[in-house]
Order: sequence, then C-alpha cells, then structure tokens
Amino acid sequence: MPAKRNVYLNMKSRGEAKQLFFARFSGYRTGQETIGVRSSGGRVTAAPVFARFSSPSFHSAAMDGIAVLARETFSASDQAPLTLSLEAGQAVMINTGHPMPQDKDAVIMIEDIVMAEDGNTTVIRKPAYPWQHVRKVGEDIVASELLFPTGHQIVPADMAALITAGCSQISVRCRPKLTIIPSGSELIELDDTLSELPAGKTIESNSAALCALAEQAGARVWIEPIIEDDLAGLKNRLLTAVKSDADMVIINAGSSAGSADYTLPAIEELGEVLTHGITIMPGKPTILGIIENKPVVGIPGYPVSAIIAMEEFAVPLLAGMQGITLPASRTIEAVITKDLPSKSGIEEFRRMVVGKIGETYVATPLKKGAGAITTLTRANGMLKIEAGAEGIKGGTKKTIELLAPRSRIDATILCTGSHDLSLNVLGDLLQKNEPSFSLSSSHVGSLGGIIAIKDGMCHMAGSHLLDVNDGSYNVQTIKKYIKGKDLRLITLVYREQGFIVKPGNPKNIHSIASLLENDIKFINRQAGSGTRVLFDYELDRNHLDCDDIDGYDQEEYTHMAVAVAVLSGRADTGLGIKSAAQAMGLGFVPLVEERYDLIIPEAVFGTPAMAHTMELINGREFKQAVEALGGYSTRETGNEVSLGPQIL
Amino acid sequence: MPAKRNVYLNMKSRGEAKQLFFARFSGYRTGQETIGVRSSGGRVTAAPVFARFSSPSFHSAAMDGIAVLARETFSASDQAPLTLSLEAGQAVMINTGHPMPQDKDAVIMIEDIVMAEDGNTTVIRKPAYPWQHVRKVGEDIVASELLFPTGHQIVPADMAALITAGCSQISVRCRPKLTIIPSGSELIELDDTLSELPAGKTIESNSAALCALAEQAGARVWIEPIIEDDLAGLKNRLLTAVKSDADMVIINAGSSAGSADYTLPAIEELGEVLTHGITIMPGKPTILGIIENKPVVGIPGYPVSAIIAMEEFAVPLLAGMQGITLPASRTIEAVITKDLPSKSGIEEFRRMVVGKIGETYVATPLKKGAGAITTLTRANGMLKIEAGAEGIKGGTKKTIELLAPRSRIDATILCTGSHDLSLNVLGDLLQKNEPSFSLSSSHVGSLGGIIAIKDGMCHMAGSHLLDVNDGSYNVQTIKKYIKGKDLRLITLVYREQGFIVKPGNPKNIHSIASLLENDIKFINRQAGSGTRVLFDYELDRNHLDCDDIDGYDQEEYTHMAVAVAVLSGRADTGLGIKSAAQAMGLGFVPLVEERYDLIIPEAVFGTPAMAHTMELINGREFKQAVEALGGYSTRETGNEVSLGPQIL
Repeated sequence: MPAKRNVYLNMKSRGEAKQLFFARFSGYRTGQETIGVRSSGGRVTAAPVFARFSSPSFHSAAMDGIAVLARETFSASDQAPLTLSLEAGQAVMINTGHPMPQDKDAVIMIEDIVMAEDGNTTVIRKPAYPWQHVRKVGEDIVASELLFPTGHQIVPADMAALITAGCSQISVRCRPKLTIIPSGSELIELDDTLSELPAGKTIESNSAALCALAEQAGARVWIEPIIEDDLAGLKNRLLTAVKSDADMVIINAGSSAGSADYTLPAIEELGEVLTHGITIMPGKPTILGIIENKPVVGIPGYPVSAIIAMEEFAVPLLAGMQGITLPASRTIEAVITKDLPSKSGIEEFRRMVVGKIGETYVATPLKKGAGAITTLTRANGMLKIEAGAEGIKGGTKKTIELLAPRSRIDATILCTGSHDLSLNVLGDLLQKNEPSFSLSSSHVGSLGGIIAIKDGMCHMAGSHLLDVNDGSYNVQTIKKYIKGKDLRLITLVYREQGFIVKPGNPKNIHSIASLLENDIKFINRQAGSGTRVLFDYELDRNHLDCDDIDGYDQEEYTHMAVAVAVLSGRADTGLGIKSAAQAMGLGFVPLVEERYDLIIPEAVFGTPAMAHTMELINGREFKQAVEALGGYSTRETGNEVSLGPQIL
Repeated sequence: MPAKRNVYLNMKSRGEAKQLFFARFSGYRTGQETIGVRSSGGRVTAAPVFARFSSPSFHSAAMDGIAVLARETFSASDQAPLTLSLEAGQAVMINTGHPMPQDKDAVIMIEDIVMAEDGNTTVIRKPAYPWQHVRKVGEDIVASELLFPTGHQIVPADMAALITAGCSQISVRCRPKLTIIPSGSELIELDDTLSELPAGKTIESNSAALCALAEQAGARVWIEPIIEDDLAGLKNRLLTAVKSDADMVIINAGSSAGSADYTLPAIEELGEVLTHGITIMPGKPTILGIIENKPVVGIPGYPVSAIIAMEEFAVPLLAGMQGITLPASRTIEAVITKDLPSKSGIEEFRRMVVGKIGETYVATPLKKGAGAITTLTRANGMLKIEAGAEGIKGGTKKTIELLAPRSRIDATILCTGSHDLSLNVLGDLLQKNEPSFSLSSSHVGSLGGIIAIKDGMCHMAGSHLLDVNDGSYNVQTIKKYIKGKDLRLITLVYREQGFIVKPGNPKNIHSIASLLENDIKFINRQAGSGTRVLFDYELDRNHLDCDDIDGYDQEEYTHMAVAVAVLSGRADTGLGIKSAAQAMGLGFVPLVEERYDLIIPEAVFGTPAMAHTMELINGREFKQAVEALGGYSTRETGNEVSLGPQIL
C-alpha cells in the first residue's frame, strides 16, 4: 500500500504559528560571555555598559594658540591692548589637543595674537572668556555614565566609543547554537570529485542556506551528517542534539506526512508538537515543536519551502535569544505585471523580479514551484498573497518585500520576451564592468515581450518573430501590437535555428519531414514564441500537418528546456538554437538563420543603464564572446532597424 | 614659534574628491581565489558560474500515486473505467520525489485511483496526460546553464542553488586587504589592566571602528602598532605597507596641517596627493593620495571625522575592488526640530536622533563636535547640510539618511526635557525586556521639554519645574505654555537636589550662603532647566545676589557635566542630584527634595511602546534599581498628577 495521505491536523496560519511558538520562548536568552570590544561587532550587550574613563580625560586646547587665565585678560580691548608675558608664564604656547596647563582656563587663537619678535611676549586686543576654545574633561563621555543599555547591538562607532571610555571587554549574549540534522535516504553529500549524480539521489544543499541564514542572525551552526529515513535513528540523533548545548534543533526534512516522514513522530514521541502544517505555500509541511524546553523545527525539504520556513520561524527566534529584533524587510509598492491566481485559505509567497521603469516599480512573478531554488536566486522581491485573497489581477499595485537593496533594484534592467544565450553574455559583461547594474531576464516568448513593452512592464524585450508574408523579422508584429509609443529596434545577433538531436543524430533527422518518420518524439515551444512561429511556418511551407507530429502538444518555454528534454530522453528532437545544443553536448541539424532583435522604448533608451548596455553591445568583447558560443553571427550586432513611420 | 596655520590648498567638495579618487581605481579589482560554497556568503563571483548538474537530475514523481504511461490511459473515463495491472507493470506505486520508472511518463494521484483489495490492480476513471505530476529533469536548473554572472554577491539561497547544481567550489574576488597605521605621539593602546589614563594621553580607539567598517565592506584588515609623530618613521612604515600585499593603506591621523602633522608630507614625498582638505565637516582634514598605484588615505584624528571620512572615501573603494557597489543609505523625510545654523561653503554632517510621532518623523540634532563619538553612537540618522546652504530653519522637512533600520526608528521613544539618571534605568529595562523598543533621551532642560511636547517633537519629556508661588511642580508651567493639547503628567521619582562637592567637602559648603565664602568657584545649570529655577529660587529666598557668585555665568547642561566640572577642578561645587555625585565618587550636601515627572501627550500614551513603558515604571524592578542609585524615593512613582481643567 502507498504512503498514507498527507494530513495536517489543525493547520495554523503563519501569524498564529509564530505567536504560539515565539511566546513559548519569549524569555529565553542565551548565556553571557565577556569578549574583547574589537571583536564585538554585531554582538548584543548582556548588561548595561558604563564608562570607565571620561573623554576627553584632560582639559585640552581645541585650537592652536596661547593658554591663558581668562580673568587676567578681561581688560584687553582694541583701545587698550594687553601684553602678556610668556617668560613669566602669563601665556603658554599650545597646540590643538595638548593638555591645558594647570593654572590656565582659556585659549586664544593664534590668529588673534601678535607675538613679539623675541617670542617673549604677546599682545591681545580682546579678552578671553573662561573655558574658551578648551575641550573640557568629560565633554564627550563622563566616567561612570551609561554608554549602552542592555540589549544594544554593537556597530563600528560603538567600538571606538567603548575603547575611548576604557572598556576593552564587554559582556554580551552568547551566540545561540543551532544544530541542523539533514534527513532523507535519497540525500547524498556533494563530493568535489563526483562527476555524475547517482540515479535517484539528491544532493543535500539546504543545510548550506539554512546555516548561512542562521549565521546572519548571529547564531553558531553545527550540521550533523545526513541521516537515513528511520524513526529510531532520528529520535536518537534528535535527543542527543537537544541534550547538547544546542539552543535550537532543526530537522530537514521528513516534515510532511508520508510513509517515510519521521520528523513528526520523532518530535511527538520526545516532546510536544505545537503545530504541524502552516497555511503558507511554499512551506506548508513545517513542524514547530518543543523537546526538553528547546525549540525543534521540522523544516520541509523543497529548497524554497525550507528557506521560507527558516526565515519565518527559526531566524527570528535565534535573534530573539540574543535579545534583538531583526529589522522588517523593506517594502515598495509595485504594479503586478500579470494575473496571479491563488488558492484561498493558503497564504502564498510568490517570488518576483522587480524593476523600476520610469517612476513606476513593476513586479513580474517567477514560477511557483517550491522545488525551484532558482526562483529565489533570481528574485529580488517577495509578494505575500493573503490567505483570504482569491488571487491578484494584473495591473494592480501591491506591496512587495524587497530581497535586495533598493538601489540595486533601481539599477536592474528588466529584459523579457524571447530568450537567447547572448543575453547571458551581455548580463555578465554588464555586471562585471559596472557592478551597480544588473540584467534580469525572464522568458515569455517574443510576442509576450512585445506585449510587455506595450504595457510598460520591461526595459527591453528580445524578439525573433518571422513575418511569414515577407520574411522580415519583428517589424510587422511590433507595428501590429504597439501604437503610439516611440521604440528602438536594435539587432542583437543572427543565429542558427535547427533541430536539437541526440549526439550522433541516431534517428537521422535531416529536415522537417523527418519528424514524421522513425517513431520520432518531438518537443515543441510554446505558442507566441518566435521559434514556434518559425516551426509552424516551416510545417506550412512543407505542407505538413501538426497532428502527425508526436509531441506537438508538448511545450517548453526555453531553448535550454528543449535541449534538456532531448538529453533526458523525453523527446528525440525539438527546434532550438545551436548554442543550446552545444551547451548540452547534443547534436544540431541547422534549419534557418534568423535575426534576433531587442525592442527598447525610446524613454528607456537614453537612461545611463541602457546607454552603458548599448556600449557593451557595440563592443568587441561582447561580439567575440557571442561568436564563441557557436551558431551566431554578429555581423549586424548593434545596428538599428528602422520601424518605418510609426502610427501614433 | 607655534605650529604653522592649518592651510588646505585647493580644497575639493565631497563629490569632486570622490570622483577624482575613485576614477583612478575604477578598474582595480583584487585577484581571484577558489573557495568552498559553504563559506562563500557575501563573496563576489570573479567569473560566471555554470551549472554542472541539472536539477532535478532525474524525472521524479511530484505526487504520491501510480506511475503510468500516459498513452495507455487515454481510454479511461467515468463511463469506461480502466483497470491497470500492477503485476504486469502497467502501473507502479510511487512516492513523491522518487525516480520515475524508465518506461513511464505520468503520475496519477493516489486520490484518483481505486486499488483492488489484493493490491494487484487499480482502477482509474480519467486519462493521464504526458508528464502529468512529474518533476522533469532540469525543471529548475539545466546543466551548463548560467547560474550567476560575474560580480554576483552570494546570499544564502545562492549557496543551495550552487550545491544543487554540483558547484562545490566557486571562483571569487579576494577580499581586499587594508592596512591601518595609527599615528600620533599622544596615542596609547588601551591596556586591560590600566586603571587610570596617563595625563595628556589619548587611547587609540579609531582603528577598531575603521577596521569594523572595512570588514563590513568585505575587506581584511591589518592594524599596525601606533607610530610616533616622526616624518622619517612614518614614511618608512607607509612604504613598507604599500609594498606589501595591502590593497589600501590608511594613516590615522596627522592629516591636518599642524607642526606635528606628517601625513601630508609623507604621502607627497612617496607618491601623489590628489586632494588635501575636503569641504565637509566633520572630516575636513582628509587626504586622498596614491603611492605605487595604491590608494592611500589620510584620515583625521577626531573620531567622528575619522568615521565619516572612512565611510565616504575608503569603504566604497574597498567594495569596488571586489566589483560591488554598496547599497545607498535608506532615507526618510523628517521635520527638523530646531534651527541649524551652518557655515556656507562647507557641507555639514549633522548627527540626528530620529523618531516617529504619530505619522510624522522628527529629527533632533545632536551636538556638532567632531570629537564627540557619542554623537555617532546615539544618532540614528544623518543630515547632510549642503555646502551652499546657510543653515536650516526649525520646522522644515529634510531628507535624513538612516543609520538604523526603519523598524528600529519607528520603535524609538524620544524622551527630552530635563535629564534624570532614572531614565537610564528605564531605557535599560525597556530594551532588555522588549528588544524592539529603545529609549533615546536628549537634554534640553525642563522648559525645553515642555516646548518640545507643545511642538509635537518628542514622545515624553522629563520636568521638575518648581512653581515659586505655591511650591508645586510642573503643573503651572505646563498650563502656561501648552494649551489645547491633552496631556498626562506621571510622577517618575522624588529625588534629592543639593550641592555636589569634592570628596570630604574640603570647602565646607553647607548651605547656599556658603557659596559666597572661601573663594568658591560655582558651576551653574543652563536657563530653563529645573535645577536653575530651583537655584534662582533659593538665591531669592535667601536674599542673595547672583553677581556675588563666582561662576554663576558658567553653565552646563546635565547633572553629570556639573559633577565632572567639580571632579576635574573647574568648579568647587554646583547644584545637582545625589545620584550624579555618587556616580562620580563625589560628596553631596542635600538642599531639597523635588518631584520629577514625565509629561506624555494623550495621543502617545495609548501606544504599545508607551503602554509597555508605563508597565515598567509601575514595576518592582524599576523602583528597586532607582532606589539603589541613591537620593531617590519612588513612593509616588507611576502616579498620575492631575493637571486640573485644561484650557482647550
């Protein structure tokens, strides 16, 4: 019999789960230790810190000049200049920062005195007031005063203040210790020498991200060796961890309710489960528990779920153990570029790519999967769709939590439309040369790109749409869809499209007609993509019927996805660019050469980011790197294509 | 003869200086090194990173159920249920995440099948489409695809992606190495065992802050031993540092133009000075130079100047050497609480305390001195007053760069008015119990506090203003100054005011009349402070003339400053609270007991921060800690004082 069904009894919302969990540890603080101030950055004071010394610790001159006793200067005026004797000690030469002589209480600036030739006397023309130009003892810090209260997190300037005040050691909260137990029989450690992955095995990668997140919150982390799916073994390991000096234990994963998921019974049998299942997606199979008064978190296995569960439930508690609250994420309001259906009753975390177009922030969702770690590495924003919502309409403004600094988001170039590998080359050059800029590309096909340009949802879009009437590229479709907007059309590359085939072309595919032979499984591109237009055009030209092609209804969204379908045996062939075939070590049967252009709104074209991008496109380095990919010609790269008279 | 005057030839603005300096190193990048992904947090890729493995690396079930070949299920319907044989291999039981059998291409969920009792057959009522509920190879990552471009800074999720893609090692930019040379004959190292500071010596504390700032930007730091003011020695040390593996060298300080300032000639003689003197305050005596193609920065000695110069000129360059741009500071618009005169021609960096009152951010300047490190440790915002400005009028809105997260600023309780040491106790308890809250107190005297409450510039104000007519406290003055605003008046403490005297009371001060005897030097408090009102009242009551008191015109702003004036010998006595005298180990001659209250606007009173504060004030822990300070009674602590009918 198969696994019993995933059942979460009494699921909690994110807010409820947090409250329940954090309330149980609200008073929990790690112990204290005394450390040197120079290594105290980011640490949190465990007790108030009082100054040992005053600063300045002596009265000192705040200016270069002479030190005097103010009351001996009161008679000086323009009418009655006063002569002070240096020999007799009425005035003493002094430099900024030097200690005041015991019997002096004011400084007269060098500009305001006239020295005698012999340097024995000096003349002043106005009186000094007491403590004029003197930095007095304790002006900055008074010995015994409170420098920092309990719970203060040390920043660089604090270190200088502490040292100035004579505090070389301070008492701080210990860094909480987190133990992570990676569990799962399918997991293997990534070994440097491994050249291929054993079938059915998954590399254990979550612990690295969970560890880094915990360390950012000030924790120390111990990662246990991978443990197999086995209840007794897991309980044993868990109990050992809880009984050690760990302040928190995480089991990753096995937190769902399948036949091989032992995290729930392990926590249940050793302690208390506060909640199993939280109404968030990704992150639903999260377990919050307590064993021997220590927090134990069952974190889901899918990487995005794991990171979200970690950030929501474990990280704030680790910070709280040191007596600090982590700053809330920065948010902005952004226009959502497309409809986002959402399941009611579940709070959904959608990873977004955010950019600034003109004065407006726009946010495009990345795909949903909890397993797609690249949706997190590519995202620079997070949209939380409330459990109550039925989804979000494209074009509405929503609050986005930023995953990157705002300045970085402002300098993100949003590129959409058709994908081409030369965009990777461009993005790499862009960021290498000008670190503040970055290129974020999403793939929605050529037509999708034109729509995005029309709607003001991107800075540029790649397109290779063949006009079947005249064999031209892009111009007609752009004119058809976009009216009243000034655009530039810049040729990026010419590239070969053809059949991506298995190495050695075992099914002997040599033309589009070959697809009907030899029981060939085809993999198609999505409607609206330039490659699909090209394929349909070629079918038509050769009088072939798409119904005769096995796999015509199987669609992928990128050249690389087509290549991987061929590599993994899902398909025998698909139409794509040569560079994709080459990148995967596959064969390639050329069909046509096509032009791939960038569409750029005039308003964007003049921005510094785009000016820099154009410079790179026209540069030697870009062209050489693109040609090296194979299947490309850069003979017209950077040229502007006339769109003719535009209909405004 | 004294030092030659400070002369900066050809000073540059901050912008000019940065441009000049950074342009010279715009292409400078540190070398590259290969490191393990698990320790790559915050590091920057030196080359594009491509995936070694696809993820998933095998087709796997995305649901629990049975694996089938889709085309064998096409006939299934409600009308014609289809029986599949598990024995014959038409269907195979499968769990989520497990590899798909070689000859299967779809999964049917467990909910959609009916198993036979014996488990040998199963019935389905609808067909599966190809690749239904299958996680396909490369769905997340395609082997050979670009994971990260050059210049990408690694965050936790990136590590999981890298490991998943089989990249255990990546090539990153080396951390730039910074060498700091602390220079100055007056400097000493803080030694743990040091019980008192040698006269005229200053503890070298800047290097700790500069080091921490550089490390935050990803640099490694080497701090040289302190070097005396000596040109030959400095040149020697500088040249050795430049010829080492350092990427940048900082000399701190000696960057001004005094007789003992050798930083300028040292750089000049060994290399090139790009600018000496920058039109910023603090930070003016900054030197930007180049020796042997390496950047050399002369950083001023005053701690605030040092940190500002470091942040403006050294830190961005250290980040740039790794190919990263640091995020810009977050800013908010805040109402400036008082007039800020400013010198034209100099860009002024004013440290501010920012808080949120209702929906408005308000920012109060801290004092100006470049020597006052506590103005940086207490500030949570920075106001840059442009060189062209003649100052800022109180009440205007200005852009403030935040030095703390906004959530922390939103949770800052702004307390002003008269200072009392019990506020330190309160602040400490507040932050210890509820890490998100903090108390920021500034001292402007009781009357200043009432004005601040009137103007909506603080959350609460301490006051101990004696009404000389009826001997009551605060009520009359509040009613005189504030109309039309609902307020609460809460008693914080009763405290003893009296004469702070040297230990053993050597001048035998026993009453206010004693101040006219024994050549006594008095230190006064500023006008508007409750202590000044009290003193003037006592003078009047005793028919004494303030002109007869030596030092009546010498004013300090806090009890602690009065105490330190007595301790340092500037004065024999001053009026202040007993706890201040005790904190400094001084004697105390009681004069009166007075009431110290907190004034809190009704609108603030109900906020969570203030509710929590009131809870603490009424708690045992606060009262005990205050009584322990000495000179306090908490007999009415937390009581509300009636303000009577308010004039609206």
